[in-house]
Amino acid sequence: MAYDLWYWPGIQGRGEFVRLALEAGGIAYRDRARELGDEEGAAALLADMSSRQGAGRQGRMPFAPPYLASDGLAIAQVANILMFLGERHDLAPSGMADRLWLNQVQLTIADLVSEVHDVHHPVGTGAYYEDQMAEAARAATPFRDERLPKFLDYFTQVIACNDGDWTIDHRWTYVDTSLFQLVQGLRYMFPRRMATLEPDYPDLVRLHDQVARLPGIKAYLASGRRQPFNQDGIFRHYPELDGD
Amino acid sequence: MAYDLWYWPGIQGRGEFVRLALEAGGIAYRDRARELGDEEGAAALLADMSSRQGAGRQGRMPFAPPYLASDGLAIAQVANILMFLGERHDLAPSGMADRLWLNQVQLTIADLVSEVHDVHHPVGTGAYYEDQMAEAARAATPFRDERLPKFLDYFTQVIACNDGDWTIDHRWTYVDTSLFQLVQGLRYMFPRRMATLEPDYPDLVRLHDQVARLPGIKAYLASGRRQPFNQDGIFRHYPELDGD
Repeated sequence: MAYDLWYWPGIQGRGEFVRLALEAGGIAYRDRARELGDEEGAAALLADMSSRQGAGRQGRMPFAPPYLASDGLAIAQVANILMFLGERHDLAPSGMADRLWLNQVQLTIADLVSEVHDVHHPVGTGAYYEDQMAEAARAATPFRDERLPKFLDYFTQVIACNDGDWTIDHRWTYVDTSLFQLVQGLRYMFPRRMATLEPDYPDLVRLHDQVARLPGIKAYLASGRRQPFNQDGIFRHYPELDGD
Repeated sequence: MAYDLWYWPGIQGRGEFVRLALEAGGIAYRDRARELGDEEGAAALLADMSSRQGAGRQGRMPFAPPYLASDGLAIAQVANILMFLGERHDLAPSGMADRLWLNQVQLTIADLVSEVHDVHHPVGTGAYYEDQMAEAARAATPFRDERLPKFLDYFTQVIACNDGDWTIDHRWTYVDTSLFQLVQGLRYMFPRRMATLEPDYPDLVRLHDQVARLPGIKAYLASGRRQPFNQDGIFRHYPELDGD
């Protein structure tokens, strides 16, 4: 099965959660927009999205990237894509209770990612950060002080539910690669705040380090395929939004 | 199987998407916090949540309500709960492509619900609307003008993908009851804007009306179990945030 991953070129963004699961699982894919470069890739992505619009089952298009296309099927929404990969490539346990639990944790990760985005874009997805800096500064404080520790407490509790070294069972799943990306992104966006908080979350840091050592992830991080974080993605480093 | 639904009493909120699927499906449940009243119910909800914390599989607790508890299992995240109900109670097709498609649409509905919440709470979930009215007014304009029609266009496209009268197949699923709730909530929150937009979305309105006529939904809407919308839920009517 050949996969086409479609996502905005030039950023890790939400697509990175999909890339990490594919890379850790050794699953072949083409990063379609990215391989064309920033401008041509974005145009190709928009063209691919509109080509999927239409009547009948063929018209089951995504609302937004990322999506994974294969055999005429386009699967969108990060948690949905990861659930599919988990089932199809055995990247997750198949029992109902475990499957629902992983999906639940992944959706909570998605909620945090969404809140992270809203910190630098509180009043308009379509407007620039520079046009909403005052609002962003106001949004950042309760996020850093209240929401962030609340989520990190929760993910620590999630890890504590398992007897093994991973989130579930005795092997990595897509939730582990997603928690890795969360820690990476938070360190990039809030280096000061994370320096304060991390000592309180040793289990989360240990999990992050374990994922970094997975052969597929290790190779990916050392390759040109891993793009650096930057000021266009979800996690953005604006020093004025950080704090101890 | 006996279900306990746990959600903040006094509001429809995210819990309503679960209630509607349960009611349409004729599935018995107890609305645990709500049946205790506002104050006692909220305390009981918080107590139930902390009672679920702990080591081992028993500690698989929700990050936030709503959650559906049954046989020691607590399933959280609206889309996850609905997927579970869909599988367990045959409220949705079971083939993989259909299952993923419904989950994808439900997650896109969840994204819109989250954006709706952020309109009246752009800079702090923990702060009052009254303390962020200026930011909310700024957030409301691009939401009404750009985001809302973009989502409604998408849901119209979703409906167009199916040959039958519903979102998928020839029977209602949890996505239909969720689209019903979306229309209801948007009409409450943005009566002026929806009066302008609705004529452009006849398929969505037709679907809404069909759901309202389902026997389980009709009985529910006429019962005391359906709480009215109010200024504490996700959909809130602040006239200053509405516009033609």
